Amino acid sequence: MLKTIGIIGGMGPAATVDLMNKIIRMTDAQDDQHHIPVLTDCNTRIPDRTEAILSGGSSPAPEMLKSARRLEQAGADFIIVACHTAHYFIPEIESQIAVPVISMPEETAVLLQRDGVKRAGVLATDGVVASGLYEKALAAYGIGAVYPGAEDQQTVMHLIYDCIKSGIRDRGKLPVQEIRSMMTDMKERGAEVFLLACTELPIAFELMDISDNCIDPTTVLARAAILKAGGSILP
Amino acid sequence: MLKTIGIIGGMGPAATVDLMNKIIRMTDAQDDQHHIPVLTDCNTRIPDRTEAILSGGSSPAPEMLKSARRLEQAGADFIIVACHTAHYFIPEIESQIAVPVISMPEETAVLLQRDGVKRAGVLATDGVVASGLYEKALAAYGIGAVYPGAEDQQTVMHLIYDCIKSGIRDRGKLPVQEIRSMMTDMKERGAEVFLLACTELPIAFELMDISDNCIDPTTVLARAAILKAGGSILP
Repeated sequence: MLKTIGIIGGMGPAATVDLMNKIIRMTDAQDDQHHIPVLTDCNTRIPDRTEAILSGGSSPAPEMLKSARRLEQAGADFIIVACHTAHYFIPEIESQIAVPVISMPEETAVLLQRDGVKRAGVLATDGVVASGLYEKALAAYGIGAVYPGAEDQQTVMHLIYDCIKSGIRDRGKLPVQEIRSMMTDMKERGAEVFLLACTELPIAFELMDISDNCIDPTTVLARAAILKAGGSILP
Repeated sequence: MLKTIGIIGGMGPAATVDLMNKIIRMTDAQDDQHHIPVLTDCNTRIPDRTEAILSGGSSPAPEMLKSARRLEQAGADFIIVACHTAHYFIPEIESQIAVPVISMPEETAVLLQRDGVKRAGVLATDGVVASGLYEKALAAYGIGAVYPGAEDQQTVMHLIYDCIKSGIRDRGKLPVQEIRSMMTDMKERGAEVFLLACTELPIAFELMDISDNCIDPTTVLARAAILKAGGSILP
């Protein structure tokens, strides 16, 4: 009997659907009935996560808790969260629900530890960087975090906000050379892999045709959720 | 204040995600918070709908009712169903829940009536054809149904099952000429438009590059749901 996955989503809605798609495509299922039951609360009433961390905006925690309780009551056996930044608020809600939350940064750290990685590059928004979210999760597994330099971090933000979130899909308009030289710099400072720790980044990196040593934590989370639900991963 | 859409899904999971994607892409929203809250129950425990109609398989109604009640309890203001064939079972569950169900065949019929269509071609699986699902919905709005001839219906089933459901995406392997001559025959018998009343068909028709007078009822449903929730459609 497969367990039911609960997804706190809506941050944003497209990232939610992307996570659902990854779960569906990675599951080894010959018909509908062998896919994993998934309850999704695309709760667009959750306030902006980055604003809450960086500029004192309303906390997303109360609405995230409402979603978690709805999912729990509807029968979710465990919960995953379809947003990197929102993971910052999970400790506030975790103690108030009975079902476990699988953490995307932690699952990523587990994978890296298994692969013997000692230092990982973290590409994310200023909010995620400032929160230390990935840094702490990695540290708990003995893995160091390497960040872009200040100027390169601005390029990452430009890529996320001015390019992908603004609908730019033309490779020629993306900062391909800047990102490549940023990665070279981070490699020199010890980064063995690069975590694409913002839902826009896997899209950007595919458009830029950069994949070497890149890890998409959403894929890591989808894989962990399938296995925890009792499903099989497509070979 | 936007209303919350409840989706009974999992029939199959990919069709559910496709419907969610259509709602997201058609909504006029400048940020996450202006998107519509959507609760989705991707309930893969629902038995096969076509088997239930054609060969006496287990009824999907009890599991569909469980989903509807979960969504209702979690706060859905109305419900939509991400599967054409499953609409056959809605009358069995509708009376047992307090929130309304928006019907995909009915919304399609409303649209056709508004556009002055008198006769519509119905392209669907044998199960949907045998159930008379679209025929009855259209008849309630004074619109006649035109079906493919017996041999052409086999081509439609081949396109759905042997091609799209089997992962074939190569245009050269699709029955483009047969489908085109089927449409000519149906036009001669009065069909003014063609309803792609199976979730695989919009994919197939896009691959075959056939779009003239074709209507995707999933898009019609997404549009109706956005408006009913109080959202705006992208211009």
